[in-house]
Amino acid sequence: MAPTKKGILERLNAGEIVIGDGGFVFALEKRGYVKAGPWTPEATVTHPEAVRQLHREFLRAGANVMQAFTFYASDDKLENRGQTLKLTGAQINEAACDLAREVANEGDALVAGGVCQTPSYLSCKSEPEVKAIFKKQLDVFIKKKVLFMCLQYFEHVEEAEWAVQVLKTSGKPVAASLCIGPEGDMHGVSPAECAVRLVKAGAQIVGVNCHFDPMTCVKAVKMMKEGVEKAGLKAQYMVQPLAYHTPDCNCQGFIDLPEFPFALEPRILTRWDMHQYAREAYNAGIRYIGGCCGYEPYHIRAVAEELAKERGFLPAASEKHGLWGSALEMHTKPWVRARARRDYWENIRPASGRPQCPSLSTPEGWGVTKGHSELVQHKEATSAQEMNRVLEMQKKAKSSA
Amino acid sequence: MAPTKKGILERLNAGEIVIGDGGFVFALEKRGYVKAGPWTPEATVTHPEAVRQLHREFLRAGANVMQAFTFYASDDKLENRGQTLKLTGAQINEAACDLAREVANEGDALVAGGVCQTPSYLSCKSEPEVKAIFKKQLDVFIKKKVLFMCLQYFEHVEEAEWAVQVLKTSGKPVAASLCIGPEGDMHGVSPAECAVRLVKAGAQIVGVNCHFDPMTCVKAVKMMKEGVEKAGLKAQYMVQPLAYHTPDCNCQGFIDLPEFPFALEPRILTRWDMHQYAREAYNAGIRYIGGCCGYEPYHIRAVAEELAKERGFLPAASEKHGLWGSALEMHTKPWVRARARRDYWENIRPASGRPQCPSLSTPEGWGVTKGHSELVQHKEATSAQEMNRVLEMQKKAKSSA
Amino acid sequence: MAPTKKGILERLNAGEIVIGDGGFVFALEKRGYVKAGPWTPEATVTHPEAVRQLHREFLRAGANVMQAFTFYASDDKLENRGQTLKLTGAQINEAACDLAREVANEGDALVAGGVCQTPSYLSCKSEPEVKAIFKKQLDVFIKKKVLFMCLQYFEHVEEAEWAVQVLKTSGKPVAASLCIGPEGDMHGVSPAECAVRLVKAGAQIVGVNCHFDPMTCVKAVKMMKEGVEKAGLKAQYMVQPLAYHTPDCNCQGFIDLPEFPFALEPRILTRWDMHQYAREAYNAGIRYIGGCCGYEPYHIRAVAEELAKERGFLPAASEKHGLWGSALEMHTKPWVRARARRDYWENIRPASGRPQCPSLSTPEGWGVTKGHSELVQHKEATSAQEMNRVLEMQKKAKSSA
Amino acid sequence: MAPTKKGILERLNAGEIVIGDGGFVFALEKRGYVKAGPWTPEATVTHPEAVRQLHREFLRAGANVMQAFTFYASDDKLENRGQTLKLTGAQINEAACDLAREVANEGDALVAGGVCQTPSYLSCKSEPEVKAIFKKQLDVFIKKKVLFMCLQYFEHVEEAEWAVQVLKTSGKPVAASLCIGPEGDMHGVSPAECAVRLVKAGAQIVGVNCHFDPMTCVKAVKMMKEGVEKAGLKAQYMVQPLAYHTPDCNCQGFIDLPEFPFALEPRILTRWDMHQYAREAYNAGIRYIGGCCGYEPYHIRAVAEELAKERGFLPAASEKHGLWGSALEMHTKPWVRARARRDYWENIRPASGRPQCPSLSTPEGWGVTKGHSELVQHKEATSAQEMNRVLEMQKKAKSSA
Repeated sequence: MAPTKKGILERLNAGEIVIGDGGFVFALEKRGYVKAGPWTPEATVTHPEAVRQLHREFLRAGANVMQAFTFYASDDKLENRGQTLKLTGAQINEAACDLAREVANEGDALVAGGVCQTPSYLSCKSEPEVKAIFKKQLDVFIKKKVLFMCLQYFEHVEEAEWAVQVLKTSGKPVAASLCIGPEGDMHGVSPAECAVRLVKAGAQIVGVNCHFDPMTCVKAVKMMKEGVEKAGLKAQYMVQPLAYHTPDCNCQGFIDLPEFPFALEPRILTRWDMHQYAREAYNAGIRYIGGCCGYEPYHIRAVAEELAKERGFLPAASEKHGLWGSALEMHTKPWVRARARRDYWENIRPASGRPQCPSLSTPEGWGVTKGHSELVQHKEATSAQEMNRVLEMQKKAKSSA
Repeated sequence: MAPTKKGILERLNAGEIVIGDGGFVFALEKRGYVKAGPWTPEATVTHPEAVRQLHREFLRAGANVMQAFTFYASDDKLENRGQTLKLTGAQINEAACDLAREVANEGDALVAGGVCQTPSYLSCKSEPEVKAIFKKQLDVFIKKKVLFMCLQYFEHVEEAEWAVQVLKTSGKPVAASLCIGPEGDMHGVSPAECAVRLVKAGAQIVGVNCHFDPMTCVKAVKMMKEGVEKAGLKAQYMVQPLAYHTPDCNCQGFIDLPEFPFALEPRILTRWDMHQYAREAYNAGIRYIGGCCGYEPYHIRAVAEELAKERGFLPAASEKHGLWGSALEMHTKPWVRARARRDYWENIRPASGRPQCPSLSTPEGWGVTKGHSELVQHKEATSAQEMNRVLEMQKKAKSSA
Repeated sequence: MAPTKKGILERLNAGEIVIGDGGFVFALEKRGYVKAGPWTPEATVTHPEAVRQLHREFLRAGANVMQAFTFYASDDKLENRGQTLKLTGAQINEAACDLAREVANEGDALVAGGVCQTPSYLSCKSEPEVKAIFKKQLDVFIKKKVLFMCLQYFEHVEEAEWAVQVLKTSGKPVAASLCIGPEGDMHGVSPAECAVRLVKAGAQIVGVNCHFDPMTCVKAVKMMKEGVEKAGLKAQYMVQPLAYHTPDCNCQGFIDLPEFPFALEPRILTRWDMHQYAREAYNAGIRYIGGCCGYEPYHIRAVAEELAKERGFLPAASEKHGLWGSALEMHTKPWVRARARRDYWENIRPASGRPQCPSLSTPEGWGVTKGHSELVQHKEATSAQEMNRVLEMQKKAKSSA
Repeated sequence: MAPTKKGILERLNAGEIVIGDGGFVFALEKRGYVKAGPWTPEATVTHPEAVRQLHREFLRAGANVMQAFTFYASDDKLENRGQTLKLTGAQINEAACDLAREVANEGDALVAGGVCQTPSYLSCKSEPEVKAIFKKQLDVFIKKKVLFMCLQYFEHVEEAEWAVQVLKTSGKPVAASLCIGPEGDMHGVSPAECAVRLVKAGAQIVGVNCHFDPMTCVKAVKMMKEGVEKAGLKAQYMVQPLAYHTPDCNCQGFIDLPEFPFALEPRILTRWDMHQYAREAYNAGIRYIGGCCGYEPYHIRAVAEELAKERGFLPAASEKHGLWGSALEMHTKPWVRARARRDYWENIRPASGRPQCPSLSTPEGWGVTKGHSELVQHKEATSAQEMNRVLEMQKKAKSSA
């Protein structure tokens, strides 16, 4: 039996750095186990070896959290997405917890159970209905004795508050992460206000994940921190950004970029970008630092290497990595050996190899730009009409609720 | 006991497409199991689960070849690179064969044993000495009953000829692949002449791998094919390029790009680039089509999907992939659903998200550009001097041999 | 004798569009008559034919204002810049007025006298001393009977207020233009406050010129307009931006871009960019619309063509321009003829032809970024030290004044 | 009366550098005096002051040749282009010669008379008919006593030969310049063969102008020189390239770029690019070095400054230019003063300021790429059909001739 591990809050409150893992959905899509579009995690049941291996790689890269791979594994989502296997949320969530625990036990990592936004909320179901969805997932997490609860990928702070309210009934710590940037949630609620509301709802850790690149996410979390402190509240902070450069996003993040999700390659961050990110996050007072879509194990390793001094150790995977490229000293070509130094990699501006491609794109879709002041006109009227219909429905539902 | 599989030559000669796997060195470096610099494959012994998983992903993506992960696993290389575990080449090579076989047995794939260029050749050892190195690896492959022999990553056709001469003594088919582009090998021998020499040495399959992007590699193999046909010889052709765009390379390939090996991300090919590549390779008459550094399983799957009609089936991993993005029809946002169509992805020109980075780089190092007519001046005199010293040594060694 | 022309305020107050000219300094530098560095306009005396011709081209392109070419023609500037001819400000200013008048009389244009910021202010001379400089220039303008006074290129609103106070003593309209962007003047005074202070000082027309690209300048003038209206004041608005794209500028504008002033070519706006600009400025309620550095006559013509409907006529130079490229119908190649249409040019995204160059630069120098919150660290300590010295001097001078 | 000037051949044969002027068509289009599409030079008659001023600026920038502005001023072209003024070629050509002579007399420049390709040739008129066109222009040049004859902008060497045969009857030197690149003329005749044919036809100076950027043009002239020398002939060489970067052109040059002619701005060469060009051309043994479309006077000045040591003097306009940016020492900002040095400007890689634009374009139209081996498929079938019709007509006409 493994000795009892220090909990997430004990670690953070003691000033320790907690390194998160990377996003499973995108990583496993590239490996052939998740389908882009529905994005559901049946692989926990059908291909456990693939999920287990990815957990192991993140552990080895330095992650202290094994988040159960339960993204979009709520029953309402699974139904909608017409999966052929007819797996229930409970089956997937249980398998996910088992896999996370198995690997967590191989090192110093904590198992977390995760929930994310639901189709039920987006289709204007009532608060009790939406909460029932979360409750069902929570039941699995309690049964499987995860160590803390994690919210991720919420576009609306209201739904996240509901989730926090459900998850905190477990008595375990709740870490709540929205997929928003500095412009706030999809109703224009600022990061500062979002954070205050989440803390008031009962979250001990707040932050953002997904949708934006590291620097943008750190900026949003800084705004959250300022808001929480201004309100005289206390919290810990987390950040788990994309591993894609997204300077051209509008408020809805990388979803609206024309390259999403199948042509994002040229935006992938290098390991050196990750060093910068880790330092920036640390300097901002964030102590739970991980990644989301686009992260591969080497990205997490770079975070761990940047913070090795503060943590007091290097991750296991660094045995296969010369710090700052130092192992290139063993390369056969002398001019490649000359790259075995920090300042070379810190200052490189990598070419895209794509002279017919631009640096930035124009986000499309239905995002809101420039301080939520004006809707971006969508090219396809039909889509806009559809969205207006949804919006109208939402309004009615709310007012009649 | 598995039924006997159709051999590599039977397949190719019958007009079947054989899909190769992707490069293990780069993929496992990102996963934390290979060290960039020495690039040696001790992971076959120390982390078999990681190697096995990657084999499985490529199998699932459609690969018909499980090439044993024996890159740089010759004793002279392993000694040079000062590995702490003191594993012998035989240990690593045996483990590699076992892993490849184990996964190959899970599907319709052939195990190949592979050799690559040696430090012994580069430091001007004699032909018998270099051949002895290959012989040692061959002994393992024979013991482990691999189905065919594969040469990859040879910069000099002369060394490749020696390797072919050794490997063909096994009586098994030999596939010989150089890491050259249209400008030829490092001594300026043209692709056409290289191919003729390899066929005459005994290779039944010839081609190129690594160092250049897909279109450049296909071009080089076309030149090989023309050469072989002009010489009245017969062969099959293979191509296993980088998954990086490299329009700015000189004759030595991506090694000389300033981004090598740690900032190549913006150059990574999309799955749609892979469709183009697969079609181009097929149209060029190449039937053994795979990948090398930078390839992830989804890249190989894209090759298999492009050629699904010709092969008559889709790979297993396509159950997790809507062809041409069609699964986006299940996305929640209408404007993302609108991307569920072939012409959208075929015509996309993805942005880099890096407005302060250029499209192309200037290769550095000691490459030769513009038809081998002039040496690129190296910035660092010391490196050039060192290289001159090596060259002089080589000349002396050859003339005295 | 020419009939009396409608004055600048009569035109603007009647809702007419007044089109300005382009910047003479940069245009004549390219033609060989102005020296980049000192940027002084001795050419009015030494090469009147060149100055006259440029006036004529702008008149022909649709400009309603012939601004006398008196940039940096104050005695304190001319002394500093060590010009070999020892021309006085009065000589240069008089010649400039004569040339402007001569060409203005050939069409429907108004002569304006212009002043800009002085070395005296930057070296902390007293208000009376700085005002004396402006007074000297004003005396020439009065003698030469210019129709209105124009301030341009002021980085500090305080100095501009002093200039307005001097110029309005002439009883002629005063148009006051700062070289600031949305972040405000060099002391961080917002565009809104700058505009209010200028109007209170006596300017009837306020706006910005130089330093930023058209869209940024229009944005700054919008902010001015909002400020003036909020303060219950009334004014007309002007904008005369760069013809360079400058999305990467900090608050000090294009001066701090590494390309300034000799490698700005790839940033030059097309005529189609100018159409967009003219429309945006018009929609913002700006009625005095011109250009500054980088403008060539065809840029002003494009402004006039975009606003031809509103003005009721095309400029003379449009006889040599098919609207929206329509004259390409007379091209010899059919595929070039196919470009003779508006949507082709409206949607073009022109390539730079420079694959080794980035899209954006990092401004250097001593600019202030991100809301004036932090100084950009200058690479060269000596320059920073020098600037600190100047700043200290300024503070002392102000406090002792 | 001016003293007799040294002729063009005396200069070149004595090893002197002759600097050409820049292209008038594009420069005057930007100034409002030439219409893009027809591109005809009626301005010599209607706006002589504008033409004269441009001549003066090039003279002042260092040009030794005042080429009469007679581009497309053949009667067949003027008729086609439906000019409203009904000016004859003779009228335009005479005025052009007078203006060129007037300015040439102000300095050390030679007047040249110029002809270019004709619609008559393109529409398959007979050799005598085409030659009659050139003869008509020649008569004016003889009457106006120009010092030498200049062919420019010929896409087909055959037509250029005919022109040389006509012009040499004057007994004056003939300089013949094709608008071709390294791939040769529009029928695929190589630069080497083109040059030999032109020399055999009677040209003493051969080279290329227009259509490609400087480095590409120099490369083509080098190929001409090699051809002429290999054939045992003798000639002098000239080069007058675009001032646009065109790495993405096919054999028909910048005409086929989608940006032609109204969105070429981001491709404009800097003065520092011109230094490189001038040196490269000089090193290639070319002694008549000038410019074509896109050249402004400061570009020619840069050529003259680069070659000042070899020529023994600076051009007049250098009084308004600190060599290598040295006059920036007089700038007010210290960090701009720090740019007053050669290595700063030699190494700058200027940003485009256009993050949504690519580096390279895809040429459209009917160009021929990759060694004339395959036709680029035109997007618009109608254009291709039209072109085929023209080609058929040409073939018939030739065979029946």
